[in-house]
Amino acid sequence: MTMIYLDNAATTRPDSDAVREALYYLEDGFYNPSALYKESFAVHRALEAARKNIISQIADPQKFTLLFTSCGSEADNQALFSCARRGNFVTTEGEHAAIYNAALEIARRGVEVRYAKLDPYGCADEADLLQLVDENTSLVSVIHVGNETGAVNDIANIAKKVKAKNPRAYFHSDGVQAFGKIPFRLTNDIDFYSVSAHKIGGVRGAGALFRNKNKNLFPLIYGGGQEGGLRSGTENTFAIMQFAAATKKKFAALSEDLSRVGILNRRFRQGLDEKIFTVLSGECASPYILSVSAKGLRGEVLQHMIDDCGVVVGTGSACSSKNRYSRVILACGADERTADGVLRISFSSQTTEQECEEAIRVINDCGNRLAERTK
Amino acid sequence: MTMIYLDNAATTRPDSDAVREALYYLEDGFYNPSALYKESFAVHRALEAARKNIISQIADPQKFTLLFTSCGSEADNQALFSCARRGNFVTTEGEHAAIYNAALEIARRGVEVRYAKLDPYGCADEADLLQLVDENTSLVSVIHVGNETGAVNDIANIAKKVKAKNPRAYFHSDGVQAFGKIPFRLTNDIDFYSVSAHKIGGVRGAGALFRNKNKNLFPLIYGGGQEGGLRSGTENTFAIMQFAAATKKKFAALSEDLSRVGILNRRFRQGLDEKIFTVLSGECASPYILSVSAKGLRGEVLQHMIDDCGVVVGTGSACSSKNRYSRVILACGADERTADGVLRISFSSQTTEQECEEAIRVINDCGNRLAERTK
Repeated sequence: MTMIYLDNAATTRPDSDAVREALYYLEDGFYNPSALYKESFAVHRALEAARKNIISQIADPQKFTLLFTSCGSEADNQALFSCARRGNFVTTEGEHAAIYNAALEIARRGVEVRYAKLDPYGCADEADLLQLVDENTSLVSVIHVGNETGAVNDIANIAKKVKAKNPRAYFHSDGVQAFGKIPFRLTNDIDFYSVSAHKIGGVRGAGALFRNKNKNLFPLIYGGGQEGGLRSGTENTFAIMQFAAATKKKFAALSEDLSRVGILNRRFRQGLDEKIFTVLSGECASPYILSVSAKGLRGEVLQHMIDDCGVVVGTGSACSSKNRYSRVILACGADERTADGVLRISFSSQTTEQECEEAIRVINDCGNRLAERTK
Repeated sequence: MTMIYLDNAATTRPDSDAVREALYYLEDGFYNPSALYKESFAVHRALEAARKNIISQIADPQKFTLLFTSCGSEADNQALFSCARRGNFVTTEGEHAAIYNAALEIARRGVEVRYAKLDPYGCADEADLLQLVDENTSLVSVIHVGNETGAVNDIANIAKKVKAKNPRAYFHSDGVQAFGKIPFRLTNDIDFYSVSAHKIGGVRGAGALFRNKNKNLFPLIYGGGQEGGLRSGTENTFAIMQFAAATKKKFAALSEDLSRVGILNRRFRQGLDEKIFTVLSGECASPYILSVSAKGLRGEVLQHMIDDCGVVVGTGSACSSKNRYSRVILACGADERTADGVLRISFSSQTTEQECEEAIRVINDCGNRLAERTK
């Protein structure tokens, strides 16, 4: 039985072409890029080229730079702890745990945290968010694509309105589920933007925090002064170079992948048995993520049944799998029975139509069997 | 011309057996270990076995655990920012930049930082350190093996004396250059201990912070709650599994490697032209690191000449390569002319006698040529 993997929002299979391309840096080009001999300097140059290539996919390298981090969570944490040191911090109820739990810590440190409400599909309520911003707001952070619902926030527009209200407030967005998947470019109103390699065929060990060159950051990790002093620790060259190769490939096929994944997503919306499943993700959500609920059934039990039939799907976010109910799904206004039955189906550009047909069959079958059993 | 690599304290060539052993986790076993399906759980179990195996190399798994970090610098930073939040923080003048620069930040945050002096070989002056410890000391951090001189601090003994003076003070050590190289086990007086994969044939992307189970830490990175809530971010399974494999191999050959590297080190001490080179590392230093100075010559220029002849050596620490003089070498009492001429020669268990003979010849030749030229 070949397994069908539909939990790509949790992590993707590393792109083997990109691994092959970067393998040199794991084998012969293993040198410390901060050392001073020519072998190291060659690695350093490759790393700077990779940085520039990644930046140029979504931003003007004249205006933006980026620092490599070990993961998306680190990038999020660095932006938040760096910028939300005074006044108040405005964010949303739809954030990834890396923002949400960092925000709780920021509150413990004495900075007021304000949460904007979500609409039923998981988008930030723009009017609610804007009325939370005032002259004391130090930072606003809004997730670009929600990791549980796929809801897309129009962050360029939100950032513009935030800046109109308080030009001194920093604007950050967690772009982990957006980067390489939906078309987008960073505007001048966006100061910081977090991305992660392993959601787009990169290996783990590389993330990045885009930074408007006019805006400064504090380090989260101090030491040897790598990454312009903003992120110390020997650069993870293999992971970064593989990330750069995966990024290049992803962006080259972005539109094509987007429409193909859109077809798969619509097929799922039509194919899932509506007696069992309610679609939670809105029509305008990223097609890469489809959140559904088998109301009245337990998502985790259903997930295991589906897994036993060779199909891997998620339940909410893998990162918050310790909590029974997803706080994001509840914030969308779902009741607990709906939240309990959530499955997150998430696609990659590798997912095939045939896999989807089989997965729909399995998910419907398991849903019906579990519904029978729990009658 | 085959290159001779003698900058293993900066980074080592990843062990290819260990890479091969871990490759499964980059290819087929790529699942997010925090997800709930059986494929993920298998990865999770492998990761827990790796954790236990690494712990047992230097500690009793009943008493100690460890959290995986992205690198040694992160482990150092987490220990320091977690434990040095009040009173005073006692450390030494011989620390790696990850401790030194985190200490500067701790001082900026209002905690007094006290630095113990070094002896001429780079060891912490124990008496000086102990008189700095008082009832307000929250943390003491002493590097195990100095990354520039190879100086070995008797941290078990120092920790014991620190605890005798203030049982509530935490004791941390940066063990990055010690782990897998010199025989050692964590004692009850040591609360936290940082290590890094890429100094022992591991790939970059994995480090670890050992923790006495009775002692708590704060997270540095908040989010999905991985690593028992102490380090969020999807676990870098490939890097961790490769680290575990490299660790196993390293520890199995530790004594044998140690005596063989000891022979290489002594050969260097005897073979380097004493008209040009003064050995800075003490006789009791770790044999893996040999710091020498071509007093009156510029180490960096000499390094480039040697590099052009196919031999790679370091100048002080790769991590602080932006500063002309090493603060650690100056803290050993060296004058600026001595500090300017420092070369750091660092071995791995792969280094051969033949490579050393050739390197000695090249280094002597370059030293003499540069001395001629600058007469």
